[in-house]
Amino acid sequence: MAYELFYWPTIQGRGEFVRLALEEAGAAYVDVARERGTDEMLSILGDAGEPHIPFAPPFLRHGKRLMGQTVLILQYLGDRHALAPKAEAGRLWTHQLQLTIADLVSEAHETHHPISAELYYEDQKREAALRAKHFRESRIPKFLDWFEEVLARNPRGRSYLVGGRITYADLSLFQAVEGLTYAFPLAMKRMRAPRVRELQQAVARRPRISAYLASERRIPFNVEGIFRHYPELDA
Amino acid sequence: MAYELFYWPTIQGRGEFVRLALEEAGAAYVDVARERGTDEMLSILGDAGEPHIPFAPPFLRHGKRLMGQTVLILQYLGDRHALAPKAEAGRLWTHQLQLTIADLVSEAHETHHPISAELYYEDQKREAALRAKHFRESRIPKFLDWFEEVLARNPRGRSYLVGGRITYADLSLFQAVEGLTYAFPLAMKRMRAPRVRELQQAVARRPRISAYLASERRIPFNVEGIFRHYPELDA
Repeated sequence: MAYELFYWPTIQGRGEFVRLALEEAGAAYVDVARERGTDEMLSILGDAGEPHIPFAPPFLRHGKRLMGQTVLILQYLGDRHALAPKAEAGRLWTHQLQLTIADLVSEAHETHHPISAELYYEDQKREAALRAKHFRESRIPKFLDWFEEVLARNPRGRSYLVGGRITYADLSLFQAVEGLTYAFPLAMKRMRAPRVRELQQAVARRPRISAYLASERRIPFNVEGIFRHYPELDA
Repeated sequence: MAYELFYWPTIQGRGEFVRLALEEAGAAYVDVARERGTDEMLSILGDAGEPHIPFAPPFLRHGKRLMGQTVLILQYLGDRHALAPKAEAGRLWTHQLQLTIADLVSEAHETHHPISAELYYEDQKREAALRAKHFRESRIPKFLDWFEEVLARNPRGRSYLVGGRITYADLSLFQAVEGLTYAFPLAMKRMRAPRVRELQQAVARRPRISAYLASERRIPFNVEGIFRHYPELDA
């Protein structure tokens, strides 16, 4: 039974974290809005008969199951496709890492929309410049340093965040670092995060991920998504 | 084996969502920083030998387990104290609700710190006023309307978010609405959310919760926490 992913069709956004897990798993999935438009997605969000109504995209349908929230979807896929350890301690730790990546991703979004997600960036540029400065100078280093520490302390080696094999958290950290590097190329050039960079490159080299990244299924970064390159925010 | 909760000792903050679950469960726990000061908490955060290092408080120690991220801690406690359904669909739905509450809580924090959590509120008052206006006028209604819908659609009735009994998501929604009502009394008076209000009152009446709220263990709301009452942000 193929998964159905519902997400905005022209951006990577939060949906990309789900896409990467589905791709690495080699799972059959339909990226519904890209293949058939957004009508079905919007009608589920407005469907008065759906008890488990998502708050916002992305959401995933799997048979009778409908679930929203990126980190929840990843936990679900992780369990089904061995993208997280089976043992409880490792499974929880993977989820904890993912939640921290989600915090980083939210803060990256706030850099260009510090006042309201409903206003245009152009209407909050002054505030965005202030927020982006703090994000570049204090938050990116804090998050990257933490992930460096997590990699350094993994008793099974520094190749993965959790244990000795790939998890959805590795895929998501790859995506977060790709996004930060697109949005803040100058700031990221100054960051020292050798283990995170190695992980990023190792994920990009994985056969299924590298095939995905080279395919048309990978939407290029753009200034509509979560990670946006505005040179004035990377000064 | 008693749980050890590590969180800042003078605020409700994110730790309060954990405290409410522990209280409702009747679980033995130590609120470490309140009872013994913050040294132990800070030393865990700086402990180079701890592989599962938390990014930030709150975190919970349970025997050999150490875990951070509020929603992860709640999932863990929910499983152990019947504060979430056992069946996968209900368990996931509870977690999805909690993740959406966490988003609301983060946005509430952003109203007084839209530029940087490291600056004082007084250094970002102008931006906070702009952000708070959008939060009051567009985000609070969107979240409350969604929870109203969730309650209306619960096939087991409108007393709880999930199924026919209390979950950690109910406790957290109670806390979020309490916090919003403290921070934005005027705006909240204008909101129509009858089912959410009923849930809030029902949670407050639960024997263990009402005993907790009347005890010294409940720290009063104040302008150091996530929910802050600044009259100028509630204009």
